[in-house]
Amino acid sequence: MNKHTIRTDPHGLLDITQSIKKDVEAASIQTGLCCVYLPHTTAAITVYSGVDPLGLLDMNDAIKTIVPIRADFHHQCDTPTDAAGHIKSTLVGPSMTFIVENGELVLGSSQSIYFFEFDGPRDREFYTQIVGQ
Amino acid sequence: MNKHTIRTDPHGLLDITQSIKKDVEAASIQTGLCCVYLPHTTAAITVYSGVDPLGLLDMNDAIKTIVPIRADFHHQCDTPTDAAGHIKSTLVGPSMTFIVENGELVLGSSQSIYFFEFDGPRDREFYTQIVGQ
Amino acid sequence: MNKHTIRTDPHGLLDITQSIKKDVEAASIQTGLCCVYLPHTTAAITVYSGVDPLGLLDMNDAIKTIVPIRADFHHQCDTPTDAAGHIKSTLVGPSMTFIVENGELVLGSSQSIYFFEFDGPRDREFYTQIVGQ
Repeated sequence: MNKHTIRTDPHGLLDITQSIKKDVEAASIQTGLCCVYLPHTTAAITVYSGVDPLGLLDMNDAIKTIVPIRADFHHQCDTPTDAAGHIKSTLVGPSMTFIVENGELVLGSSQSIYFFEFDGPRDREFYTQIVGQ
Repeated sequence: MNKHTIRTDPHGLLDITQSIKKDVEAASIQTGLCCVYLPHTTAAITVYSGVDPLGLLDMNDAIKTIVPIRADFHHQCDTPTDAAGHIKSTLVGPSMTFIVENGELVLGSSQSIYFFEFDGPRDREFYTQIVGQ
Repeated sequence: MNKHTIRTDPHGLLDITQSIKKDVEAASIQTGLCCVYLPHTTAAITVYSGVDPLGLLDMNDAIKTIVPIRADFHHQCDTPTDAAGHIKSTLVGPSMTFIVENGELVLGSSQSIYFFEFDGPRDREFYTQIVGQ
């Protein structure tokens, strides 16, 4: 398993594609799977178009609209932003599995992989695990 | 593949972390992946913070707000609650893959794994499949 | 890795279950995992009930309601429909992992696998990668 540490912004998408590509190349397998996993409950992993950076702002706006930061959350252990972050994390998800073929990570031509922060800024981690042969 | 049976409440999150941890320990592999899969279309699997149990109520409220139980669904085979459950299941998802390392399930310190019921109470199943070496 | 090509409608769910079942049978493994991956940013993969085809219309309506096609998206590279499609793709997801057991794809009795198009009609691809033994 490979561990990566990043520093995030308060709320938004951070491109982690290159780190995952390098892990796959270093794994020296030809064919298999690569699971990217976040050990957090107020962040998520997603694939998004990297062609137009302004599109990332739309995703960031959309998740804030879909999951409002309510003043009346039941959750008491932390801030309402943290409570909303748990819900956002469930909708987008903390795990995604990719295909490895010919020793490389398989991505579509406009796909990039993003760490999606919902309650930053923080020091965060993500892990990759590669299986195959 | 390991099969588990649970009894759910009408709507909400049930902690299944311990069952999955035990499956991983029993698999006697050191490094690999563990896929948790639900054979249902009105339930889902998610990772959520287990630190504040009240936060689970917020997630339960949020998914009901995002997917209202409409009186005018096209779906006719079952109740509107069932029809809404299909949509909720698509948004949260019936499959999640975890990392296995040093013979153990990798989870963040505040992460727990939940079976998310959208149309209970029912007898439900979830499966785990562990690959690696 | 197996590659499949399909032609989609403007917006909606296309059943791809049989193609994935055949890939698993052809892989000649007994136990393992099957990852289905889409190389697109305005489409997603989901499991949905195939029992009542009208239910698919509800899912299609729901995602359009949850992610409105806004006239004021920041995204400029393509149409607002494309911009909304990126957000829908993040919520539903471009990757899903299934369990293989006894040489067959494991699905619940009412589960089918769907390619979810958000910005068609287009020629689209989906890939499967099967690992195990």
